Amino acid sequence: MLTVTTIAGVRARREEVGRTGVRIAFVPTMGALHDGHLALVRRGREIADEVWASVFVNPAQFAPGEDFARYPRDLEGDREMLAAAGASVLFAPATKEIFPRPPATVIDLPALTGGLCGAQRPGHFRGVALVVAKLLNIVQPHVAVFGAKDWQQGAVIRRMVADLDMPVRIEVHPTVREDDGLARSSRNAYLDVDQRRAAVVLHRALQRGAGAAAAGERRGAALEALLADEVSGEPLARLEYAAAVDPDTLQPLENVRGRLLLALAVRVGATRLIDNLLVEVS
Amino acid sequence: MLTVTTIAGVRARREEVGRTGVRIAFVPTMGALHDGHLALVRRGREIADEVWASVFVNPAQFAPGEDFARYPRDLEGDREMLAAAGASVLFAPATKEIFPRPPATVIDLPALTGGLCGAQRPGHFRGVALVVAKLLNIVQPHVAVFGAKDWQQGAVIRRMVADLDMPVRIEVHPTVREDDGLARSSRNAYLDVDQRRAAVVLHRALQRGAGAAAAGERRGAALEALLADEVSGEPLARLEYAAAVDPDTLQPLENVRGRLLLALAVRVGATRLIDNLLVEVS
Repeated sequence: MLTVTTIAGVRARREEVGRTGVRIAFVPTMGALHDGHLALVRRGREIADEVWASVFVNPAQFAPGEDFARYPRDLEGDREMLAAAGASVLFAPATKEIFPRPPATVIDLPALTGGLCGAQRPGHFRGVALVVAKLLNIVQPHVAVFGAKDWQQGAVIRRMVADLDMPVRIEVHPTVREDDGLARSSRNAYLDVDQRRAAVVLHRALQRGAGAAAAGERRGAALEALLADEVSGEPLARLEYAAAVDPDTLQPLENVRGRLLLALAVRVGATRLIDNLLVEVS
Repeated sequence: MLTVTTIAGVRARREEVGRTGVRIAFVPTMGALHDGHLALVRRGREIADEVWASVFVNPAQFAPGEDFARYPRDLEGDREMLAAAGASVLFAPATKEIFPRPPATVIDLPALTGGLCGAQRPGHFRGVALVVAKLLNIVQPHVAVFGAKDWQQGAVIRRMVADLDMPVRIEVHPTVREDDGLARSSRNAYLDVDQRRAAVVLHRALQRGAGAAAAGERRGAALEALLADEVSGEPLARLEYAAAVDPDTLQPLENVRGRLLLALAVRVGATRLIDNLLVEVS
């Protein structure tokens, strides 16, 4: 696996590879890799000839007071895991390489970012959209693979790519979970033993919501109340939001028909965890 | 010259051509072509192997009440002029091809669009940035050529391309003028004989400002006052703005050093005309 730290280095390699007709899948990450990321790399190998990954903890998507400084970083470990999973290129730039000066350009999708995580993390999705646009323009992959756990992020990126006619396909891959159902996340590393046990409440709440939908509950507000009720039963957890929304527009659903996204954000101690479940009702 | 009306058609042609190593220069236009546009096509032929042009009157960059509906359109004439100038491909999509639904994505560069034309045309540069991003992502040229008359537009696009690491070089080509100095513009077609005569006041004012700068005037406000004074001497003209700004940041210059942009927007009758002059002071 080749490790590249400069934009010029990626562009040179991309031009070389481009002449051969090789198809590239791209997996952008913030590092601190886990099985969830590696599933994206494996998926990339299924749908393209080479997988290129990036590790970049993007300052633009952290608000002041969030965990940018203490976000887990382990580039050596990440490199080993990516190589073992079969990635061909790792792009691991310094902050100054991606942001040599404060950007003057803002990319915003207000209709998709007003709710859910966007309501609690002002500016977060502007930072995500900006850095993903940059990375896609640098790597120029044929397909980019994102994890379903960050559903709102995936929806924002899909819509940005469609609106801007960016020449890339976006694929969202299912969330990888621990045996007890907790979604894999780099932030799980923040949890102590009791918090780790409590964190499974997100998955339990989503399952309860999905069960109610399967049993005929069609009122979005009632499904949201069920999720919130389940979370309130866990003393170490504090609900940030519980939502039943359209999976594409992310707008609340008064009455559920067809596809439904159940989504949660929960604080366990100081750690903010998110999870979601895509539900199909007939 | 090949005329293409669909995004898929452009992408197919682009992929074909891409395999041959041909370098493409792109000239996006709103049609109603004149010598100013053709100079961009000729410049494109100097710096690339093929010139691809687009004709698309972009609704997103007209505010309500502006001249979108009556903006001059002459696709057949445009096609002949582009073919004669040596363009290889014309992309002439319908509005619905570029905007199949209202975009959810906003691209904004507030620091560059608060003044000059941006102050008088709210949303204009968001519309420009969006459509140029789309066209660059569809055509994927090696270089795109814009006219210097729309200086603020060029500055916005240069900065957007840099901030988003878009894989294209932006070139801004000098303004083409009539014999009496009036900048070529599709909107000159709106002028009657008297207005046409009056319109030369923009060029005269810019020349007077440049002369004063050459003679030692270093105060931005004094240069702006000179431009305004010249325009006020023309009864058919009404000043919208007169500015002395940094050519890259577009911020007002209290004291001029190095490069300076003198810029004007003037109403002649109902027609809004703009012009500018890049001045180097030692």
